[in-house]
Amino acid sequence: MKKFFSVADVADLHGVVQEALSLKSSPHAFEHLGKNKTLGLVFLNPSLRTRLSTQKAAMNLGMNVMVMNMDKDGWALETQDGVVMDGTTVEHIREAAAVMGEYCDILGLRSFPGLKDREADYTEDLFNKFISYCGVPVVSLESATRHPLQSLTDLITITEHKAVEKPKVVLAWAPHVKALPQAVPNSFSEWMCKAQEQGLVEFTIAHPMGYELCEDFTKGAKITNDLEEGLSGADFVYVKNWSSYVDYGQVYPVAQSWMMDNRKLQMTNNAKVMHCLPVRRDLELSSEILDGPNSLVIKEAGNRVWAAQVVLKRMLENL
Amino acid sequence: MKKFFSVADVADLHGVVQEALSLKSSPHAFEHLGKNKTLGLVFLNPSLRTRLSTQKAAMNLGMNVMVMNMDKDGWALETQDGVVMDGTTVEHIREAAAVMGEYCDILGLRSFPGLKDREADYTEDLFNKFISYCGVPVVSLESATRHPLQSLTDLITITEHKAVEKPKVVLAWAPHVKALPQAVPNSFSEWMCKAQEQGLVEFTIAHPMGYELCEDFTKGAKITNDLEEGLSGADFVYVKNWSSYVDYGQVYPVAQSWMMDNRKLQMTNNAKVMHCLPVRRDLELSSEILDGPNSLVIKEAGNRVWAAQVVLKRMLENL
Amino acid sequence: MKKFFSVADVADLHGVVQEALSLKSSPHAFEHLGKNKTLGLVFLNPSLRTRLSTQKAAMNLGMNVMVMNMDKDGWALETQDGVVMDGTTVEHIREAAAVMGEYCDILGLRSFPGLKDREADYTEDLFNKFISYCGVPVVSLESATRHPLQSLTDLITITEHKAVEKPKVVLAWAPHVKALPQAVPNSFSEWMCKAQEQGLVEFTIAHPMGYELCEDFTKGAKITNDLEEGLSGADFVYVKNWSSYVDYGQVYPVAQSWMMDNRKLQMTNNAKVMHCLPVRRDLELSSEILDGPNSLVIKEAGNRVWAAQVVLKRMLENL
Repeated sequence: MKKFFSVADVADLHGVVQEALSLKSSPHAFEHLGKNKTLGLVFLNPSLRTRLSTQKAAMNLGMNVMVMNMDKDGWALETQDGVVMDGTTVEHIREAAAVMGEYCDILGLRSFPGLKDREADYTEDLFNKFISYCGVPVVSLESATRHPLQSLTDLITITEHKAVEKPKVVLAWAPHVKALPQAVPNSFSEWMCKAQEQGLVEFTIAHPMGYELCEDFTKGAKITNDLEEGLSGADFVYVKNWSSYVDYGQVYPVAQSWMMDNRKLQMTNNAKVMHCLPVRRDLELSSEILDGPNSLVIKEAGNRVWAAQVVLKRMLENL
Repeated sequence: MKKFFSVADVADLHGVVQEALSLKSSPHAFEHLGKNKTLGLVFLNPSLRTRLSTQKAAMNLGMNVMVMNMDKDGWALETQDGVVMDGTTVEHIREAAAVMGEYCDILGLRSFPGLKDREADYTEDLFNKFISYCGVPVVSLESATRHPLQSLTDLITITEHKAVEKPKVVLAWAPHVKALPQAVPNSFSEWMCKAQEQGLVEFTIAHPMGYELCEDFTKGAKITNDLEEGLSGADFVYVKNWSSYVDYGQVYPVAQSWMMDNRKLQMTNNAKVMHCLPVRRDLELSSEILDGPNSLVIKEAGNRVWAAQVVLKRMLENL
Repeated sequence: MKKFFSVADVADLHGVVQEALSLKSSPHAFEHLGKNKTLGLVFLNPSLRTRLSTQKAAMNLGMNVMVMNMDKDGWALETQDGVVMDGTTVEHIREAAAVMGEYCDILGLRSFPGLKDREADYTEDLFNKFISYCGVPVVSLESATRHPLQSLTDLITITEHKAVEKPKVVLAWAPHVKALPQAVPNSFSEWMCKAQEQGLVEFTIAHPMGYELCEDFTKGAKITNDLEEGLSGADFVYVKNWSSYVDYGQVYPVAQSWMMDNRKLQMTNNAKVMHCLPVRRDLELSSEILDGPNSLVIKEAGNRVWAAQVVLKRMLENL
């Protein structure tokens, strides 16, 4: 594996999940694979779970890890070509990426969208340039439009906890106070659509009018604006807020209650509840669910390690 | 050891000091104990000595270390239950702690008091919740009311440098420009009171009127408002500023000079002078003392490694 | 080696370059040399290449690395003696350096000049005090007046890529939007002057009037204010901006074009072009050069590892 950016980078969904679960049962089985190899984690935006779980995964494989926090103020990168750099950007991504590639065998990159210019965000310009210029394999630690390590984690978690062969999985929009990116729901959707194609799940998306995701990510999904209809018979409910794709980056007032709570849980098939975290309690998801037996959120976060580890393992094997 | 938060977590003061000194003479004797174990150090407030010494201690034991700097602006934690999280806190401590527990075998946490609401600070709500929710052993890297790694260091240092069986140890208040927490003096006091009970030291606290510490930490200590009386015959003088506990977080003008200097040193039994650092030169403690033969401050800082290492060793043995 | 601060700390320029190239061909040959040794990297100013390359070098030698980012706001150090510390500085360099020396076997320090007070910057007060007080070997990660790891890297890179026995090397001033320190050009100049003395290169400096470097660094160099004259017959062009030393820290308007581009490259002997990075594209150096076959900037950045590694290796051998 040379790149882990979208579901298209994984040929065998079932195989990668099984390999991740095998690493979970023997975390140190490949601790010599990463000896004298260096993983560089580049964060243009802050991270908690992603940084820790990827660092842990790399250490389990015996790798060295170097973390670079390059917030936009401290080390602003120029991404456009042909610009006279007489402004506030201090380094061009051509040099920054190539230099980091000199020091690292594998690089991870996190870069959030601006949520102002949809075209700019959805072309994934920065990410693609980073991949082109750094010259080493790149793991996405969340880009403008996708968060594939999270989605692989989610598929691992669903596989571990499913009680039926082909569970009904529902991505349910939930309220928030901020305008959040579509990266997590886009990515979850593209992974679940592919899992559905392979007969692994049945996938539904429920969201209020105006919160339609980009169709590139939702092909094959059943989509409804009726939360109750979506939840009916669900085995897994994946709760997540996102801002509008259509009216890009905007947030609409939503009349109906879309917070996931125990009353709504009753409409499901005693569903397990998932969330990528951080979660706003009693706004997105009720405390009673988070603290109750149906919540998988902590185990899901724990599985971030095995998603990262299987990706790094495959990259190391291919260096 | 499952928790290192106060002196109550150490059954055998003498034993733990001897074990620390033994690690000091053989730092790498237990380097296999921490193999494939991960220490997570969570800082809600900045740290220099504590982070470096604990990281060094963990590496001496062969552990991996991950550091998380979560300042209050960047990743504000909600600690109250039943709050609708529609404000500025981005994650509840229930999730944050539990997730970090998924990635780490032992966690360290630093969290300073607000110094506004004594009740809130002294209940150690955040710390206790972190311990409850993370599910792994927790080392305090300084909490609202205590700094036990510092106090253990101090007892190690006194043990190493004492010239008499039962030295007179004086905690002497000193001036500062800022309102500082009571964590270091509280903790030093509770460790010295216990050491006094066990016949290891004789303990006196000297401070101006209005700077009385919480009595929970000072039981058995001799307390005086007369610095000269306190210093008389002292073998060790532990210099430290703190703000008022009674009129919580306030700073009073102090008429008399409370800065420790050579003139005052003459009143002692040629005392060794200690300070947890950072120290304000010529405000808390004179340069002549800091640069002279009676200062232990650098050796004391060096001993932070062995305090952390003995605590981590005991936790690792008990995992 | 106890200190790596200027070219004077290296007795044998040729030997150190050859040793670095030998490490480049066998990066892990000395991986046991640093076992249980700790490198502390202290940054009073931000760093990308220097931190990553030095960390990588240390890991190649089997060392543990601890990074301390102490920006001026967060942990302001007092450097003057005899000051009552009742202001904004929180710790004196005497204590800060000594404490870090307790935890580390080797320390690296980065500290930029203020560019306000030439006398203060050029005495290298902070750096010299840090060296005096920390008690362990110190590597400069760039000081107020020098950047020796960069200059050693540059000599390694020139040695690798030279086509003639004694290439003509030109340090060519270039425009920028900010007032930059003289550390890189000072250091490059003192290394090239020494290399010239040893018959390794022929060295010329080209800069506009008013940008004369301090003569301590340029003894033996040919100096011209005519860029075309300087570039004539050059085998290597080292492009770099700096602010005025004479009118300290100031920036003058420069009438003539001093940006390095393909037209100017034609005046050279098909010169290789170098830059320490980060580079402002199309302001200091044209994109056509940076993206073309004459640029060495990425390989040069890559060589930072071997410069750091040979220095650390010599220090470890001498502990």
